[in-house]
Amino acid sequence: MNGVFITFEGLDGCGKSTHLEKADQSLRERGYRTLVIREPGGTWVGERIREILLDRSGKGMDDVAELLLFASARSQITREVILPALEAGTVVLCDRYIDSTVAYQGYGRGLDIGMVSRINEIATGGLMPLRTYLFDLPAETATERMRARGGTPDRMDANSMAFKRRVRDGYLEIARREPGRFVLIDAQGTIGETAQRLSQKLEEVLP
Amino acid sequence: MNGVFITFEGLDGCGKSTHLEKADQSLRERGYRTLVIREPGGTWVGERIREILLDRSGKGMDDVAELLLFASARSQITREVILPALEAGTVVLCDRYIDSTVAYQGYGRGLDIGMVSRINEIATGGLMPLRTYLFDLPAETATERMRARGGTPDRMDANSMAFKRRVRDGYLEIARREPGRFVLIDAQGTIGETAQRLSQKLEEVLP
Repeated sequence: MNGVFITFEGLDGCGKSTHLEKADQSLRERGYRTLVIREPGGTWVGERIREILLDRSGKGMDDVAELLLFASARSQITREVILPALEAGTVVLCDRYIDSTVAYQGYGRGLDIGMVSRINEIATGGLMPLRTYLFDLPAETATERMRARGGTPDRMDANSMAFKRRVRDGYLEIARREPGRFVLIDAQGTIGETAQRLSQKLEEVLP
Repeated sequence: MNGVFITFEGLDGCGKSTHLEKADQSLRERGYRTLVIREPGGTWVGERIREILLDRSGKGMDDVAELLLFASARSQITREVILPALEAGTVVLCDRYIDSTVAYQGYGRGLDIGMVSRINEIATGGLMPLRTYLFDLPAETATERMRARGGTPDRMDANSMAFKRRVRDGYLEIARREPGRFVLIDAQGTIGETAQRLSQKLEEVLP
């Protein structure tokens, strides 16, 4: 593998997508070949799975069915897009990956963490990010930011505050267990402040 | 559990769906409460997954992504439909279930059989059929019958003859390993002959 695989994690509203775009732009200006990936989605199969997952009419969706849908989309994008890009030396920036599943379906929904990890392993064939940036902020702040953005909340946005708190705590727990891979970024400040924090950390992993 | 869980397996064209309908009709005439299930599908999530799986434009679908899609649909229907029906004392007749995944994605596509079985276990929570009828016939005969029916073949129909032979052999192997659950039905004769064979075997599991 010649490329660098970096993932961005955190609650919706934490700013990870904004910062991923900024990082991408800055890397491209410096001459890196980059690829931005959005999970779930990014492939024919994945985009159709995304529609099912976010559709608000899917209210009675079983937790394990949801887990397996995310895993299916991930399997497709890992093998069709991420692996070939890494082999070609690209810096791959991924908006959500395996840790989202552990945080949301494991800690959030209460599915067995070991089972969720085994499904992740099967879906990805064991491909791990070199670095994962966790944009951390309280569930209440994330929700307020989502509200301020407007628009109709999707099925995942409509989860309760208690759910989002469990997801945040889950993320922090996962990050504690893998200090070599995770970098915690305080996302409570302004966009400028957070961007600066990320920018410093990003230097460490660039070839 | 007060109900009886029966599954019908075999290659497309083996006649299992026809015989499932006949068995259902005969059971209802005799006063049994029955439920007929089609996999993948039968739920809001499952029907949308079915569309993805059968769509011919999905040509580059990764084998693991396919496995996880089938598993997701199965998880939903098991928990939303099959378990409650069995608890209510219904005879559940299911057109394809876990053995299809082992035969098609395991033996057919070449995925690790142990991995496929673990995914099945996670998807179903370990719910096993009391009896499984395997309608056996050569891959060539099954394909000729499908052709005679006409219509446009879907993505799964479009698999090669070599693939279908592996699936048939896989089914026979699974059946050999679980002789207590599997009943092999020779499906090479006329519909009437096969129906009679099934009818005799069906008596054994009815309460």
